[in-house]
Amino acid sequence: MEQVLKSFVPAWVQVVSVVYTRGAMETQDVLGEEALALHREHHGKLSVESSVPLRDPHDLSLAYTPGVARVSSVIGKNAELAREYTIKRNTVAVVSDGSAILGLGNLGPYAALPVMEGKAALFKKFGGVDAFPICLATQDVDAIVETVERIAPAFGGINLEDISAPRCFEVEERLQKALDIPVVHDDQHGTAVVVLAGLLNALRVRGLNKESVRIVVNGAGAAGTAISKLLLEYGFTHLTVCDSKGIIHDDRDDLGPYKKELARRTAPRERGGLADAVRNADLFIGVSKGGLLTEELIRSMRPDPIVFALANPIPEVMPDLAKSAGASIVATGRSDFPNQANNVLAFPGLFRGALDHGVRHITDAMFIAAAEALAQAVPHPDSEHILPSVFDAGVTERVASAIR
Amino acid sequence: MEQVLKSFVPAWVQVVSVVYTRGAMETQDVLGEEALALHREHHGKLSVESSVPLRDPHDLSLAYTPGVARVSSVIGKNAELAREYTIKRNTVAVVSDGSAILGLGNLGPYAALPVMEGKAALFKKFGGVDAFPICLATQDVDAIVETVERIAPAFGGINLEDISAPRCFEVEERLQKALDIPVVHDDQHGTAVVVLAGLLNALRVRGLNKESVRIVVNGAGAAGTAISKLLLEYGFTHLTVCDSKGIIHDDRDDLGPYKKELARRTAPRERGGLADAVRNADLFIGVSKGGLLTEELIRSMRPDPIVFALANPIPEVMPDLAKSAGASIVATGRSDFPNQANNVLAFPGLFRGALDHGVRHITDAMFIAAAEALAQAVPHPDSEHILPSVFDAGVTERVASAIR
Repeated sequence: MEQVLKSFVPAWVQVVSVVYTRGAMETQDVLGEEALALHREHHGKLSVESSVPLRDPHDLSLAYTPGVARVSSVIGKNAELAREYTIKRNTVAVVSDGSAILGLGNLGPYAALPVMEGKAALFKKFGGVDAFPICLATQDVDAIVETVERIAPAFGGINLEDISAPRCFEVEERLQKALDIPVVHDDQHGTAVVVLAGLLNALRVRGLNKESVRIVVNGAGAAGTAISKLLLEYGFTHLTVCDSKGIIHDDRDDLGPYKKELARRTAPRERGGLADAVRNADLFIGVSKGGLLTEELIRSMRPDPIVFALANPIPEVMPDLAKSAGASIVATGRSDFPNQANNVLAFPGLFRGALDHGVRHITDAMFIAAAEALAQAVPHPDSEHILPSVFDAGVTERVASAIR
Repeated sequence: MEQVLKSFVPAWVQVVSVVYTRGAMETQDVLGEEALALHREHHGKLSVESSVPLRDPHDLSLAYTPGVARVSSVIGKNAELAREYTIKRNTVAVVSDGSAILGLGNLGPYAALPVMEGKAALFKKFGGVDAFPICLATQDVDAIVETVERIAPAFGGINLEDISAPRCFEVEERLQKALDIPVVHDDQHGTAVVVLAGLLNALRVRGLNKESVRIVVNGAGAAGTAISKLLLEYGFTHLTVCDSKGIIHDDRDDLGPYKKELARRTAPRERGGLADAVRNADLFIGVSKGGLLTEELIRSMRPDPIVFALANPIPEVMPDLAKSAGASIVATGRSDFPNQANNVLAFPGLFRGALDHGVRHITDAMFIAAAEALAQAVPHPDSEHILPSVFDAGVTERVASAIR
C-alpha cells in the first residue's frame, strides 16, 4: 500500500512527511523516557486500598472473620446480592491478551500490562470505576473466553482491550452471550462512540447532513469495523470501507466473515484502492497507519473535506499538512493538536452508566445515545472544537446518563 | 463423632456447652448485622486507585497513550522488566473457588468474594501488598490450575484461599510447578506458621521441649495437614493426627494419598478415636469443629495441657471451660479471647518478604523461620501472650525478613 502511494506522491511531499514524522517521533522519544522514569519510580500505576476502616480488632472482625461470615452466608443463598455487598457493584476487568497493543502489535501479556494499568487508572479518575488489569497468557479464542467466564464473578463488567481483529469480534460476541454483565471491546465501541460524536459536530460545523455526506473509513480492524457499523446504524448511507488491500466490496474473494458483512452493508458499487475511495468523499476516517493520507489524496476529495486521522502515534496525515491541502476540520488521536478523539471520552462513562443502571448489555442504541451526549457536551462546536476535553466538567456524567 | 462424644459426656456439660455456643452465636449475630451494614454501605471493601498523578493532558500522555507505548515496547523485549515497571512488583491475586469458605462450606465464588476482599484489604493494611480477589466460577482442579496460569502475568504472587481439601493440595502443587511466582495456600501454610509460632512460645512458657511433647492434631483438612507436616519438619516426633473418623494410621483403608502420607509420617502405633489420641497428650491442636473437645477429654490429657481450639467461629472448647478442666494455656481463632491465632499474623509478611526479596518459591525452611520470627515478636511470653497482635509494631517486618 505504501509503495502504491509513494508512486504518485511528489518527492517533496514525501520529504515533508518524513520530517513531520521524525519530529513527532522525537517528541515521542522524550515523552517515552519520561514515561519510563514515572513507571520505574512508582512500580506501576495502581494501588489497591481498603475502603473500610481497619484501625482495631473490632474493625477486623467486621471486614474479615468472624463478621464477614454473615455476608458470605447471605450471598451464598442469593448470588445476586453480590451486587449489593461486594466490589462487583463498581468493578470492571480490563482484559487483554497483548495481541494488538496500541500500534505496537503483538507483544504479549506482560507488555500489555502498563496499558491496562493506565486504562484502569483513567477508569477511576474519570468514571469513579474500580478497574483491574487481567493480562492473559493465552491468545487462543476458546481459552480467552473460558478464562474470562471463570473469573467473572468478582466483576460488574468486562472491558476487552488490545485484542487483535478478527479474534476480538468472536471473543466479544461469545462473552456477551455467556455473561450477565456488560462486555465491551473498547478498541471497537469506545472508538466508534468518540468518532461518531466528533463527526456529528463536524457535520454541524460544515452544515452537512447524514443523508448526503460521503464517508471513507480506512482500516477494517477492530476500530474501523465498529465505526463503520455504528455509522450505518446511525443512518449514514454513503460509506466506503478500505482495508490494506483497498475497497472492501462484494467481488473480493479474500474477505473473512466480518469483512464480508461490511462489504454487504456498505458501498457495493465502489471498486479500487484508497485513492478511488477517497476521490469525491467529504469525510476521511483513518484508523490505519501513519502518513498514508497525502495532500494529493486530500485534494481529490470534495471541497473543504473533514479528516479524522486517528492512527497513533503518527496520524495518517499531520494536521497542518491536511489544512494546507484544503481540509476544513482535522481530528487526530493526539493531545498536542485540536480535536483529540480519545477513547477516554467514552469508556469511563459507558461503564459508569452500565454499572449505575444495572445495564447487562450495552446496545448500539446506547452507543449512539452516548455519542450524541458527547457531541452535546461541546456547546458551540467550531472547526477546532468538535469534541470536549475529558477534563471538561460533566463529560463522563453525560455519557453515563445515555447508558440506561 | 459427635454422637460418640455425647455418649460419655455428662448432661450438664452438654448444657453448659450449648449455652456457651448459643452465647457465642448471639455475639456472632450482632457482629454479623454490623458487618452486613458495613458491606452494604461501602459496596464492598476495596478501591483501585491510580498511584500516579492524572491532573492534566501531560500526565495522561505519560500514564496512558502515547507515553505508555515506550514502557510496553521495553517490556515486550524483556518480560522480566514487568517486575520493574508494572504493578506485578507488588501485586498478589487472592484466588478462591468458594468450595470451603471459612467454616461455612461450599457456597461458591460469589459468597467467597467478601472474604477475599477482606483478605486483600488486610494485605494492604498490614503488608503494603496490593492484592485483588479472583473468585472462580469453577471447582474443577484442571480448570482452576489452567485459569490461574493464564491470569498470572499481572501478579507477583498467588494466595490460594478457601479451596477444599484434598483438591487444594493438588492445585497448589501444580501451580507451584507451573509458575515462576510464589503460590501459597494460606489455609495451609499461613495457619501452620501461626500455630507453630504460638506453640513455640507455649512450650517456652511451660518449659517443655520438642523431643518429649505429645501433640494431637484434630482435623486433617488443609490446615491440619499443613500444621502436621510443618511440625514434623520442625522436628516434633510425638504427633497423632485425627480426622472425623479417628486416628489416622497405616491400617486404615479409607485414606486418600495425602492422609496416607500423614499416617506414614506420624504415630503408627496409635489406634482408636479422638479420646484415645488425646489421652496423655500435652497439646491439643483443633482445626476441626466447634464444641467437640469436652472437659472430660481435657482431664484425660497430661497435667496442665495446652489447648489450641482453632475452629471458627465456635472453638472446639470455650477457653474458660478448658481452663476449668485444667488447661494451662488456651489459644483460639477469636479476637475476643487471649492468644488469637489468626492468619493475618502471617500472610502479609510472607508475601511482603517474597515480593521484596524476589523469592519464587516459599520453602518449609522459610515457613519455619517466619514462625520463629513471629514467636520472637512476643518479648516475654506468658500463658495469655503466646502470640503477638497484628497491631503490634514490626510484626509483618519480622515475618517478611524471614522470607529470603
